[in-house]
Amino acid sequence: SQEFDFTDNSHRRYNPLTDSWILVSPHRAKRPWLGQQETPAKSTIPEYEEKCFLCPGNKRVTGGANPKYESTYVFQNDFAAVKIDQPALEVQDSGKDTLKDRLIKVQGVRGNCFVICFSPKHNLTIPQMQVKDLYKVISTWQQLYNDLSKQAVEEKKPFKYLQIFENKGTAMGCSNLHPHGQAWCLEAVPSEVSQEFKSFDKYKHAHNADLLGDYVKLEMEERSRIVLENDSFLVLVPYWAVWPFETMIVAKTKVPSIAHFTDKQKDDLASMMKQLTVKYDNLFETSFPYSMGLHQAPLNATGDELNNAWFHMHFYPPLLRSATVRKFLVGFEMLGEPQRDLTAEQAADRLRKLDGDHHYTENL
Amino acid sequence: SQEFDFTDNSHRRYNPLTDSWILVSPHRAKRPWLGQQETPAKSTIPEYEEKCFLCPGNKRVTGGANPKYESTYVFQNDFAAVKIDQPALEVQDSGKDTLKDRLIKVQGVRGNCFVICFSPKHNLTIPQMQVKDLYKVISTWQQLYNDLSKQAVEEKKPFKYLQIFENKGTAMGCSNLHPHGQAWCLEAVPSEVSQEFKSFDKYKHAHNADLLGDYVKLEMEERSRIVLENDSFLVLVPYWAVWPFETMIVAKTKVPSIAHFTDKQKDDLASMMKQLTVKYDNLFETSFPYSMGLHQAPLNATGDELNNAWFHMHFYPPLLRSATVRKFLVGFEMLGEPQRDLTAEQAADRLRKLDGDHHYTENL
Ligand SMILES: O=P(O)(O)O[C@H]1O[C@H](CO)[C@@H](O)[C@H](O)[C@H]1O
Ligand SMILES: O=P(O)(O)O[C@H]1O[C@H](CO)[C@@H](O)[C@H](O)[C@H]1O
Repeated sequence: SQEFDFTDNSHRRYNPLTDSWILVSPHRAKRPWLGQQETPAKSTIPEYEEKCFLCPGNKRVTGGANPKYESTYVFQNDFAAVKIDQPALEVQDSGKDTLKDRLIKVQGVRGNCFVICFSPKHNLTIPQMQVKDLYKVISTWQQLYNDLSKQAVEEKKPFKYLQIFENKGTAMGCSNLHPHGQAWCLEAVPSEVSQEFKSFDKYKHAHNADLLGDYVKLEMEERSRIVLENDSFLVLVPYWAVWPFETMIVAKTKVPSIAHFTDKQKDDLASMMKQLTVKYDNLFETSFPYSMGLHQAPLNATGDELNNAWFHMHFYPPLLRSATVRKFLVGFEMLGEPQRDLTAEQAADRLRKLDGDHHYTENL
Repeated sequence: SQEFDFTDNSHRRYNPLTDSWILVSPHRAKRPWLGQQETPAKSTIPEYEEKCFLCPGNKRVTGGANPKYESTYVFQNDFAAVKIDQPALEVQDSGKDTLKDRLIKVQGVRGNCFVICFSPKHNLTIPQMQVKDLYKVISTWQQLYNDLSKQAVEEKKPFKYLQIFENKGTAMGCSNLHPHGQAWCLEAVPSEVSQEFKSFDKYKHAHNADLLGDYVKLEMEERSRIVLENDSFLVLVPYWAVWPFETMIVAKTKVPSIAHFTDKQKDDLASMMKQLTVKYDNLFETSFPYSMGLHQAPLNATGDELNNAWFHMHFYPPLLRSATVRKFLVGFEMLGEPQRDLTAEQAADRLRKLDGDHHYTENL
């Protein structure tokens, strides 16, 4: 009888972070594509754009004007998903085990949302920025994390978890090309993060070890999924990746949040972010779209929340075959389970082999 | 102090099917949109298309030709995500609690994938089909479910769960406009479905009742989320909907799978599918994209799997404001938790008020 071939035979892989399975069908990458084509990013973008509401000095949608900032710039989102003040929501449970008590669970949620401009230059992206400027972005995140932690304690603001993220490219719902990310601060730990904490906790009880600490060790032994590495971080395609070129940046030793970063770690993270996104751009010679974000300890964490936290970032890029052909996670994925068309090892191999020089800048 | 206003204040709602939370920010629907625009469906599509590999009599990618079918037509997917035969995957656990044992979980997965053409006419969609023809689609699903159940028993085929679904529109990764759906049959129950079964089981233990049975009763009392209703089914926007106009079609009384449907139930489901998709098309006067699918009992289910199953369908449509502006579930949604910009009740209200006549057919 034949041997099972992971590069050709269908299999399911388990994601210990989310406690769920994904379907890998590596032979499927061969099928022809007749569906929707993405529009690659525009080729000439000016350094300053009059109509951009993020460029220095420009007016914003709601009236105010941006300062003439020269590095990073943080402001409160004009269309925030959560707000600091709103009426309290009384608990709805009647205590009588009614149908409503059983099935309708709801919480009010306050917080605040911020936009973080990475650079005054309208036409830059992370892979085109210098490591020293990405260092400033990380410092800005750190500052925000610390400020909000302080406000939560000193001003009793409803801030529990800060979700820092970036949507890059129109394919990822980004409505403005100016290099920027967001940070949404909520009074609750969001689902995805709280699921990870549940998994960290379960793992620690079972093995008396950190899930991501063990995972880093395993990947450093196996090496087949590592894309990049420096003193402080690994960049890898996780064994259970869903998106074709999904990656994680994981701290090699335990660090609960950016608040705990040393200067060296900030520098090393800046360098990994630059190198990874350069590879992404080189992969299909396009300004590679993705959503990415940081997972770390809640603000003012203590006890298990602090002890179990392990800083990492997720990058979720949608492209599958070229600048114009993306993976759709649709029918089977939404109703059944996520499905991918190449293995994590194949994706890591392709990313690893790519050059570290940014190849297509001349088109921008 | 002011009262909490569900149509304006941010809140989180709990999804008892998936055991997770979603963030509702109803005031956010007001923000301007400057991002990606979808391309609405083409306006003149012929009834027969020479280059379509699903039209009757045409050649398929892999060589063979379709019969000159006159109603529905089922064939094996030429690029199946799972196959009936592949080498067995030996269990990987060393029994020594190594890092690999702790973190790498994998299963081989066999099965089969089918394409189901809903009609010989290339230019029809479900809202444009007649109820009697949709009845035939349901009969075809039923037949497939029964055939595969039989093959699993009699021929020991690796068939455990049949996921029937449709991706409609280029926005949902559909690469061919010819009206068709798919059915992927796996030897494992996929993540989403097994999570629902977990929830059904938990609910039954806690309340000695069916989760969806109770939910149907609750919705029939409250009525604010019901869009359509007939003798056998409710169409509703679930309390915990993620996509802007997400709906469920739920059986009003317990029926584990389409295999158990009476003729009356088939007729009633056909009618609900037609009426719902007509409303969808009318909402933004476009051929409304969505992914939809059936959730039901595994093949040859017995015991809890049979007793807990409750037939329902999920519709996941991406559009938010118009034929060209969709909701992106990206950065915060992927890293934090799903977020929506209008309440389930607002969405239900808009769908309910729409006319039952198909308004834009003249454009097709
Ligand atoms: O099988 P199709 O229609 O070519 O492909 C589509 O549906 C599949 C099942 O949801 C997805 O895995 C694909 O990403 C999508 O493009
Ligand atoms: O806030 P933006 O960039 O306008 O909006 C984008 O990111 C948000 C957070 O992931 C999403 O909720 C929106 O659907 C998306 O379009």
